[in-house]
Amino acid sequence: MQPTTTPLITDHSSLITSRFLAACHRQPTDTTPVWFMRQAGRYMAEYRALREKYSLLEICYHPELAAEVTLQPVRAFGVDAAILFADILLPAIPLGVGLEFAKGEGPLLKNPVRTLEDVKNLRPVDPETDLGYVLDSIRILRGELKDTPLIGFCGAPFTVASYIVEGGASREFLKTKTMMYSDPHTWHALMDRLSSVLTDYLLAQIRAGAQAVQVFDSWVGALNPADYVEFVQPYSRRLLQAAQETGVPVIHFGTGTTTLLPAMKAAGGTVLGLDWRIPLDKGWNLIGQDVAIQGNLDPAVLFAPLPEIKKRVTDILRRADGKPGHIFNLGHGILQNTPVNNVKAVVDMVHQGLA
Amino acid sequence: MQPTTTPLITDHSSLITSRFLAACHRQPTDTTPVWFMRQAGRYMAEYRALREKYSLLEICYHPELAAEVTLQPVRAFGVDAAILFADILLPAIPLGVGLEFAKGEGPLLKNPVRTLEDVKNLRPVDPETDLGYVLDSIRILRGELKDTPLIGFCGAPFTVASYIVEGGASREFLKTKTMMYSDPHTWHALMDRLSSVLTDYLLAQIRAGAQAVQVFDSWVGALNPADYVEFVQPYSRRLLQAAQETGVPVIHFGTGTTTLLPAMKAAGGTVLGLDWRIPLDKGWNLIGQDVAIQGNLDPAVLFAPLPEIKKRVTDILRRADGKPGHIFNLGHGILQNTPVNNVKAVVDMVHQGLA
Repeated sequence: MQPTTTPLITDHSSLITSRFLAACHRQPTDTTPVWFMRQAGRYMAEYRALREKYSLLEICYHPELAAEVTLQPVRAFGVDAAILFADILLPAIPLGVGLEFAKGEGPLLKNPVRTLEDVKNLRPVDPETDLGYVLDSIRILRGELKDTPLIGFCGAPFTVASYIVEGGASREFLKTKTMMYSDPHTWHALMDRLSSVLTDYLLAQIRAGAQAVQVFDSWVGALNPADYVEFVQPYSRRLLQAAQETGVPVIHFGTGTTTLLPAMKAAGGTVLGLDWRIPLDKGWNLIGQDVAIQGNLDPAVLFAPLPEIKKRVTDILRRADGKPGHIFNLGHGILQNTPVNNVKAVVDMVHQGLA
Repeated sequence: MQPTTTPLITDHSSLITSRFLAACHRQPTDTTPVWFMRQAGRYMAEYRALREKYSLLEICYHPELAAEVTLQPVRAFGVDAAILFADILLPAIPLGVGLEFAKGEGPLLKNPVRTLEDVKNLRPVDPETDLGYVLDSIRILRGELKDTPLIGFCGAPFTVASYIVEGGASREFLKTKTMMYSDPHTWHALMDRLSSVLTDYLLAQIRAGAQAVQVFDSWVGALNPADYVEFVQPYSRRLLQAAQETGVPVIHFGTGTTTLLPAMKAAGGTVLGLDWRIPLDKGWNLIGQDVAIQGNLDPAVLFAPLPEIKKRVTDILRRADGKPGHIFNLGHGILQNTPVNNVKAVVDMVHQGLA
């Protein structure tokens, strides 16, 4: 393993060999690139075998394990990009919010942030030391991966804030919205802090060798456009634009975002990620052809028989119409229990293209 | 109390006295009518007092209790419509799916429907006998309510089917979508059956005296437009159009529906309900001014300070622009712990109108 200490600049040599990176830059490709959000995970037997011995956090904390898990779907399916195995809440650990992953329960935070005092008490985070294990995974992976580019990622400030304020996953985001509406000073202080931490973290991933990054604003679709612009966009913009300035492609992703897409595009991103609720062509027209687009098969479709899957993959490829700048993906992460063979089949269908 | 056995025709006398019914028919009103989804519920002390003695189902089963709960917000806030206190899953009880409301857990179904055999085993439902307690509540309420019109309601076939297939609430709707994609014959049989049962039930409510009805397709926003058209629209259309033929206004509501609105409008409804994700004017333009519109304050806003609430209520009224056919409401049901005084304040703000 050779630690890579690339400066903040894209490795332009890989632009030529990778159809994923070419598509991010809206350059023509031999066929549509494809990868899947949460492509490493419980639906794969190789992953489950490791999880019998290690917890989610233990895998993240051991760079060689995280790297191994990251490689599993690359080996199994021939996807066009690897995405670092990690969790969007890892930066919350050094912040001191008491993150735990309760068994089968998702993340729980013992010290949620509710007041300005809580924001001030968040600890300083140095990604090189506090999240060095993530950066080490990236360095290992850049040594292991040949022509497959590696995607780093972080949560967007809103989505990370929602966990930190709610104390875990949420359906209504009531505490989050109540902080916005009732105590905007605290909200802005939190978002300011998180956007700094996340920017440092994402830039450190790029320095460590990530060839593209994705910013997950998974739950931002809970907001209306005016609230997005007032309470979220400035902080997402800071993060996205800092990453874009390095030259690596930046994928900006959320779900339920139909009414937010123009404001999300204005915040930044080389590529916008769509969920399945909006037909790909309509989404692309809405945000404009000057950015690339990623998506947007409903993850539930992977449980269907192959002819049904084929019909829906074909529909998305038709809507993309062969225009440079489409990266095939799901509209959200792969679901647990997804049949592995169907994942492989979709990769092949996408690479085969329209008959 | 005088049981009403109105034929299937609107009580046109109330069109004149009720600003709610007038707005449903896009007639001019003295001010914007307002009511709230789930306006009777746990956030009201009067309701909590009753719930100390009776379960949710016990209240539904006793028409005089259901009527009392229905009247509580009418008395407390002066809303422009009463909505029958009931649950969208009541028709699931006589279907024989083993519905239970576990404490603090939401609905659980012991016998979810997964196969064609399961669909065939659903029991026949006669709303007059099996759901007669709902109809009795309506009859009591028509005797008690003076000028305030009474809204009946049911779940839309998709949303009811999602509970029946999943066995309870869901986030991903994976079993539901898997039935659609993998076993469409069973899905269509279930939707056919549910749309019949729900149509009978809704027409019975109208016969019993409901002066308007709302069809809740609360979770339909989980689908993409093509799936909506293929798997949902024909069944929603049957229900909505049967109700519309009686002459009473029919409100067609869902959340996360931005990309579905044109297809939902095509399915039917005198009034389309919007959630907060789409600005009211954009939503109304999208579906066309030939239907009335209901919405669309984020329920979380009711937890904000009054000046913030006022700003957001004013924004919605501005977007409605005084055009006949706007009914003010939330974008989804009132949340538990909503401050009662803020609910009352919103009613007054809406009635006061733009200064």
